[in-house]
Amino acid sequence: MQSHDHDYDLVVRGATLASAAEVFEADLGVKDGTIAAVGRGLRRGAEEIDARGLILTPGGLDPHCHIEEPAEGGGVQEESFVTGSAAALAGGTTSFICFVPQWKGHPIAATAESYEATARAAMADYSFHQIITDPTPDVLEREVPALVARGIRSLKVFLTYDPLRLTDGQFLEVLATARRLGALVTVHCENFDAIGWRIRALLAAGLTDPLQHAWARPPVVEREATHRAIALAELVDQPIQVFHVSCDAAAEEIARARARGVKVWGETCPQYLTLSTDDLARPDFEGAKAVCSPALRAPEERARVWARIQDGTLDVVSSDHCGFSFATAKRAPGSSGYGQGGAAARADGLPAFNAIPNGVPGIETRMPVLFSEGVSAGRIDLPAFVRLTSANAARLFGLQGRKGSLAPGADADLVLWDPTAERTLANADLHHAIDYTPWEGLRLKGLPTTTIRRGEVAVRDGAVLAQPGSGRFLARGPYDLVRPTGRVPDGFDAAGR
Amino acid sequence: MQSHDHDYDLVVRGATLASAAEVFEADLGVKDGTIAAVGRGLRRGAEEIDARGLILTPGGLDPHCHIEEPAEGGGVQEESFVTGSAAALAGGTTSFICFVPQWKGHPIAATAESYEATARAAMADYSFHQIITDPTPDVLEREVPALVARGIRSLKVFLTYDPLRLTDGQFLEVLATARRLGALVTVHCENFDAIGWRIRALLAAGLTDPLQHAWARPPVVEREATHRAIALAELVDQPIQVFHVSCDAAAEEIARARARGVKVWGETCPQYLTLSTDDLARPDFEGAKAVCSPALRAPEERARVWARIQDGTLDVVSSDHCGFSFATAKRAPGSSGYGQGGAAARADGLPAFNAIPNGVPGIETRMPVLFSEGVSAGRIDLPAFVRLTSANAARLFGLQGRKGSLAPGADADLVLWDPTAERTLANADLHHAIDYTPWEGLRLKGLPTTTIRRGEVAVRDGAVLAQPGSGRFLARGPYDLVRPTGRVPDGFDAAGR
Amino acid sequence: MQSHDHDYDLVVRGATLASAAEVFEADLGVKDGTIAAVGRGLRRGAEEIDARGLILTPGGLDPHCHIEEPAEGGGVQEESFVTGSAAALAGGTTSFICFVPQWKGHPIAATAESYEATARAAMADYSFHQIITDPTPDVLEREVPALVARGIRSLKVFLTYDPLRLTDGQFLEVLATARRLGALVTVHCENFDAIGWRIRALLAAGLTDPLQHAWARPPVVEREATHRAIALAELVDQPIQVFHVSCDAAAEEIARARARGVKVWGETCPQYLTLSTDDLARPDFEGAKAVCSPALRAPEERARVWARIQDGTLDVVSSDHCGFSFATAKRAPGSSGYGQGGAAARADGLPAFNAIPNGVPGIETRMPVLFSEGVSAGRIDLPAFVRLTSANAARLFGLQGRKGSLAPGADADLVLWDPTAERTLANADLHHAIDYTPWEGLRLKGLPTTTIRRGEVAVRDGAVLAQPGSGRFLARGPYDLVRPTGRVPDGFDAAGR
Amino acid sequence: MQSHDHDYDLVVRGATLASAAEVFEADLGVKDGTIAAVGRGLRRGAEEIDARGLILTPGGLDPHCHIEEPAEGGGVQEESFVTGSAAALAGGTTSFICFVPQWKGHPIAATAESYEATARAAMADYSFHQIITDPTPDVLEREVPALVARGIRSLKVFLTYDPLRLTDGQFLEVLATARRLGALVTVHCENFDAIGWRIRALLAAGLTDPLQHAWARPPVVEREATHRAIALAELVDQPIQVFHVSCDAAAEEIARARARGVKVWGETCPQYLTLSTDDLARPDFEGAKAVCSPALRAPEERARVWARIQDGTLDVVSSDHCGFSFATAKRAPGSSGYGQGGAAARADGLPAFNAIPNGVPGIETRMPVLFSEGVSAGRIDLPAFVRLTSANAARLFGLQGRKGSLAPGADADLVLWDPTAERTLANADLHHAIDYTPWEGLRLKGLPTTTIRRGEVAVRDGAVLAQPGSGRFLARGPYDLVRPTGRVPDGFDAAGR
Repeated sequence: MQSHDHDYDLVVRGATLASAAEVFEADLGVKDGTIAAVGRGLRRGAEEIDARGLILTPGGLDPHCHIEEPAEGGGVQEESFVTGSAAALAGGTTSFICFVPQWKGHPIAATAESYEATARAAMADYSFHQIITDPTPDVLEREVPALVARGIRSLKVFLTYDPLRLTDGQFLEVLATARRLGALVTVHCENFDAIGWRIRALLAAGLTDPLQHAWARPPVVEREATHRAIALAELVDQPIQVFHVSCDAAAEEIARARARGVKVWGETCPQYLTLSTDDLARPDFEGAKAVCSPALRAPEERARVWARIQDGTLDVVSSDHCGFSFATAKRAPGSSGYGQGGAAARADGLPAFNAIPNGVPGIETRMPVLFSEGVSAGRIDLPAFVRLTSANAARLFGLQGRKGSLAPGADADLVLWDPTAERTLANADLHHAIDYTPWEGLRLKGLPTTTIRRGEVAVRDGAVLAQPGSGRFLARGPYDLVRPTGRVPDGFDAAGR
Repeated sequence: MQSHDHDYDLVVRGATLASAAEVFEADLGVKDGTIAAVGRGLRRGAEEIDARGLILTPGGLDPHCHIEEPAEGGGVQEESFVTGSAAALAGGTTSFICFVPQWKGHPIAATAESYEATARAAMADYSFHQIITDPTPDVLEREVPALVARGIRSLKVFLTYDPLRLTDGQFLEVLATARRLGALVTVHCENFDAIGWRIRALLAAGLTDPLQHAWARPPVVEREATHRAIALAELVDQPIQVFHVSCDAAAEEIARARARGVKVWGETCPQYLTLSTDDLARPDFEGAKAVCSPALRAPEERARVWARIQDGTLDVVSSDHCGFSFATAKRAPGSSGYGQGGAAARADGLPAFNAIPNGVPGIETRMPVLFSEGVSAGRIDLPAFVRLTSANAARLFGLQGRKGSLAPGADADLVLWDPTAERTLANADLHHAIDYTPWEGLRLKGLPTTTIRRGEVAVRDGAVLAQPGSGRFLARGPYDLVRPTGRVPDGFDAAGR
Repeated sequence: MQSHDHDYDLVVRGATLASAAEVFEADLGVKDGTIAAVGRGLRRGAEEIDARGLILTPGGLDPHCHIEEPAEGGGVQEESFVTGSAAALAGGTTSFICFVPQWKGHPIAATAESYEATARAAMADYSFHQIITDPTPDVLEREVPALVARGIRSLKVFLTYDPLRLTDGQFLEVLATARRLGALVTVHCENFDAIGWRIRALLAAGLTDPLQHAWARPPVVEREATHRAIALAELVDQPIQVFHVSCDAAAEEIARARARGVKVWGETCPQYLTLSTDDLARPDFEGAKAVCSPALRAPEERARVWARIQDGTLDVVSSDHCGFSFATAKRAPGSSGYGQGGAAARADGLPAFNAIPNGVPGIETRMPVLFSEGVSAGRIDLPAFVRLTSANAARLFGLQGRKGSLAPGADADLVLWDPTAERTLANADLHHAIDYTPWEGLRLKGLPTTTIRRGEVAVRDGAVLAQPGSGRFLARGPYDLVRPTGRVPDGFDAAGR
Repeated sequence: MQSHDHDYDLVVRGATLASAAEVFEADLGVKDGTIAAVGRGLRRGAEEIDARGLILTPGGLDPHCHIEEPAEGGGVQEESFVTGSAAALAGGTTSFICFVPQWKGHPIAATAESYEATARAAMADYSFHQIITDPTPDVLEREVPALVARGIRSLKVFLTYDPLRLTDGQFLEVLATARRLGALVTVHCENFDAIGWRIRALLAAGLTDPLQHAWARPPVVEREATHRAIALAELVDQPIQVFHVSCDAAAEEIARARARGVKVWGETCPQYLTLSTDDLARPDFEGAKAVCSPALRAPEERARVWARIQDGTLDVVSSDHCGFSFATAKRAPGSSGYGQGGAAARADGLPAFNAIPNGVPGIETRMPVLFSEGVSAGRIDLPAFVRLTSANAARLFGLQGRKGSLAPGADADLVLWDPTAERTLANADLHHAIDYTPWEGLRLKGLPTTTIRRGEVAVRDGAVLAQPGSGRFLARGPYDLVRPTGRVPDGFDAAGR
């Protein structure tokens, strides 16, 4: 069964392994790109890595990032699949899920084919969420089933942003379609009308600075849409994941719903755990670097979001990586940011808060920041780190047994961490195409030293060794919900569900 | 100061008086239509009523009833101001607030003038909520301020029904207008799209019976819109009252919001305390008699709504009286009921559940049913009965000191109750114009024997003595919130608010 | 019926009357010590008070104060019935309930007779709670029924303090006895063992200052005993009132219990609304002036206690008046304060925190402080003030219709308030026998100008006109619970209950 | 490193492995009694088991069972270490923790030495919780530190039962001791006085049947003590585990405390998930077979306890195995059952409900019943089954990395399950010494076929192959709390803590 001089292609020897459940000392043997064995005193590998003193975790799965994504009005996010996936690997993330757009009035196919072709340049493994902006019968009855058959088993809907957002009625149709097909629905939850009302009031009052972004979309706006999304999902009895939960108010709605048996999951991002309105208030328009939606919250809110991670309400940490540079996008009025409300003219020519493209780059920093602020700081343990950065997303998005696991049979996506290493985060050291990071200057403790993707060393000591195009498309299976629920849904279950 | 042979026009002597706070024995003297004195051994009145053994409460204020209300597509609710106000008086209700419609695309004035003229036929006192279906700048900036100046200080909005409903953005404009003017906003909370989705599914499954009305609008649909209405009101920091709360799920949202300082109040109706889906399931299309929105709930839900009355979450009981007869409206497809979704053809020619006009008659039965099921059954005490049927509504709707009170200076609107009298409720005994009551056959304990309106005996032993046109329009003052809150609202307070 | 030249003994003319439910303008006529009439343009009284511009409320009922109360080990609280009742009247309180002690190993009669005799010196009306420290069969089966028959219908138990406290088993016997007799049980809720454990640890660490009193009895100690008292009352289905709730944690237990139908009420005191650990931390041993139990809490806790008043969880504000002067008791080791744990020797000869007598004087300041900080500061409205200071206690303690009411038939106990008057609180201006007030220097807005007790002016402009011995013992009736509950208790209801 | 013809002593080949986090296909190789490797295509073992089609889980760890335990008054539970451990192994449990008693007035040593000697007969691995009934300074300062040094790192306290129970003050001393030593405290939570009061009332009413056991100790009695135990642990900031949670009311207290950061965990047992008062009500005194404490609850409570497992509040399922046969103990008055309250004489000579020994046998049925009712019935998934039956207890009780794990280095304690096998549970098939099982007649789906203890086949197809005395004492390390919490405890942290 084995070649006569080595049993494995690669053996990582002597590390402390951290799985989603436990921490233990063992060697890990790789064969044909998958994990072949985990054991003590494993036989020799063709290649050996001495990992004594290091921690070995599954490679990260970033289930929420925007890469080279075109906007409906023209323009494309600056991060390319080559730079974005190099950055991912450098930060310990070996696979990611990005978004196929749909233009209103057009079938999915109009945008999907070219986007999928572009994605082939990636050097990390990748899959897609399909954004639905125009759920026509043809889309729901013909195109979406075909997508699901190809392993694209998650639909993304927006309850805010023009022209992306769906009405409640359209959202219900998407939920019912997903239920029939066994797909998951992910949701951006903010109330569009409320944001627009606030923006108009702020602009009318002459308030245009980046900090006003937070006043334009306060927590109540996120809680409202979160509650609504959950209620509609409850009506249809369809599982959903609420994207990028920024505050306790929204997390509370998720927790309450779970307590009554609703199948809802919540994701958050490092920015909501570590940044705040203080970052939006930075002078010299630097606050624009921290403009994302939902908005950053008051500094004291961060502890509450950590608590919601600790109590399990939020069980995935994604990056929501967005490719908007400060010089070319954040400071440039009119770029593609799905801003809302006519922007007031500013005397300095800079965009009003509502015209600043939304989003921060974070695909490379996600895991190091969470390791440092979470594990090293004592807020989470290593198994929780694994669950948050890969294992839970793998289950929700149909990659269980393949990603986020150290078990035999799983893809040999691995990261070695030096828990004692320290470094000050600097954009100059990052591999992404964006000209800033909102964490510039953050002191990190615990760093990835080696990233292995399907058994090959993809990054070693900061040098990216993987080749463009070496990433593979991940056709995904059905979701495997993290928490079983035995709930019988309220009420009627007719054919439409 | 007094004429030389009597101090009062009328003295009610020897009753047990129940105010919003306490129960005590006293005489009550009336002069010039208002309460002049409450005391022991009051001097003589020109007229005297021996009320020993009886209970004297303030006359009821029904703040939510539909009387002779035209529908946008044509047709008028059958209850006229004459019959409706006679029924009100016979049931102990001496004043009521009904609804001035607005047609979309038209100013308020187009409907208000004629409706107000019609109302002058009433024999009970009356005021209006102004329905807003088309909140154009002209309506909000010109017409509504004029209404408020005339004492019409409450706006009614619908989050469901076509063509009545507002978008969230329109609702926010109404809230902000009301805040500027010190008016209250009342809200019908159900999710329109969710109901439509359910209706289509039910009809597609061939389910058309009246009982399906309840499946088409389950509690989650009401809870969603209640939470949304509260969130938007919280954003604007504007008080609202949630109309006709039917279930614990919606009441829970009100209670949670109050606990965090939001200015929200909740109303319910006798139908949600005493009827259920059992009534919707009655054979021979009799279930149509119980079709109202929100829908009646499962029988066990009633105890939870009572509990929400007992804990103060729901503090007003209105009738939501609707004038749809069984023969001419409930059984007649196409009548004006704001049904939703194209109705499927039924072989028997009767309307599908979604085409049955919504609403039950109850202006006359509201107080006797609540007295019997509440006070006589031991669920509430007499002061709570007074608060629920008049005093709290008087404060919320700017009639404090005039209605719902036994204090000197208040209008002498009074009801004498015989707590030992019993009767079986029969539509034949009622004074309204509708051909049925959903409480037919209910055994009542505790009945009104005499209704006095501004010092005049309007009803005695079932005989209505008041004259059409003797009711007065009530110009109302600002709300006087029942519960003071010291809350500073979350976030930004710009000019728009 | 009336004498020919005046109808009333006294007419208070033209005030704004505030009842437990509403505010209105009227004259109030008194005859034979009770309220005869409330009306506009009342006929003449033998005496007339021009009260235009003033507010008239019912006289206060302070249901929790310690007056001339002997301690088991010897010593008596310094406040006498003469000084205490003069102070009460001067602060607008026309009746109060104080405590008859029981010595362990002795029948109630051993202490009750002499204490009741002493009380006859009072110039305000008074009643008693019977403290039970030794619930022997003879006490429960013979003495307590006799007390209840005499109108002493409330039993006070301590869950902390040595030698006052009861075991859980004794408390259950008291609850079951009260249930049989229709008496109310009031409870001091703190965990004795937990306090003792903390005291020993603090003293062992050499921490003896008054501020340590707060560390010795943190909120969790109060929450624990509150939950336990409620659970045992729930088991027996017997109404209880939790005395002097100091924090949100304890109030939360009350609110949760009420939500599931348990008959529990909560009281708080002005000290928990206005003072804090800042007062305990005052230098020069001045912190001892603020030592009471439960302890004062962190400054930010006060807003939460106000919120629990606003949401109705806490519905009575008493003084918990204690007669310990600073010079003779607070600074004097060994005085009767039910301290706990052997006190460590202090070098300065002052008592360690745990040997300082517990309690603050407040019978005179209770109503003015609550008027100023509550009504004038906009936290509560006038009817709430009336409910908190008299009407709710009257219902709970069987004085409904006699005290706390402006209705005809009630005792003419009245207070006139000048809402615009201001004064700085100074102990030199108070009438009690204690040498300090913890509110020294507090600026008050809204002051009582005249106190009327059963129709006689007892205090006018600060001068006490009532005579010692003019107060009357109040034999009380059964409780009249403020909130009806229809709950069927959990489980078994055998003969013992 | 390996012998030349085989790498492993044993290879389990081709099973579906279920760890605490995931499910995967692999071979598992054992060497020297520990897991050496988990992999695909592992090299040969000296022994091989073909496990295709079977599920492989870690062997169970039952952290709560009473084996051959002496009672203070004399008498010993009937289950011996030989029979009890044979039963454990037959049911898939390879290690267990039982209880060393302490007699009041005696040091621990007086009972510990002989009990530990007795335990050496076990054929499964075992450890001890030390029961503390008399926490004298000598016990806490000398004996307990010595125990902890020997790896007995958990203390068990009772808040009920005479003579076992501690006062709150004694409990605080135990908590403080455990905090200093890093030991865990486990607690039996019921209110002793409340139970006694109910028992007396029931007996006085002539109610003596086994069903009355449930009325004597209703949920409120358990909730009270659970809240109290948590409050005292919160005061000391010491982790506790609440034993045998039987109902939602108690679980709610645990969930609330965890939400505010208290370090509290909850255990339940199969009897609370599957049995109910229906079992207590069985005729012919058969109800006695279901007498355990806390008592079984109403049938509908079981779904709520399942929900608390699903939401993570209860994360360990133990047996609370008790060795009382029906013939010799349950029906025999006066046996050692820590009954409470003098038993009333029954005409039939059988014991009154309060004299029936408390406890049900379940060490052998624990895992099969949970597999069948949990996994096969769809209420929990396989990783949850592993967490509940071994992995979580291993972390809490300091056996992480040794028990409850399939990772290399862990003891090779393994169970093979046939998920399709079915059997009707019958006491005749069980290996324990007790003459009944309360699950007699329950249909099971999913059965253990082979149990491996430290690499040796201990049970195969129902035949116990292990030898008495082959079990090993488990010296345990510190707890490794399942959920990290970053909480700073409320208040003072003096030397005593």
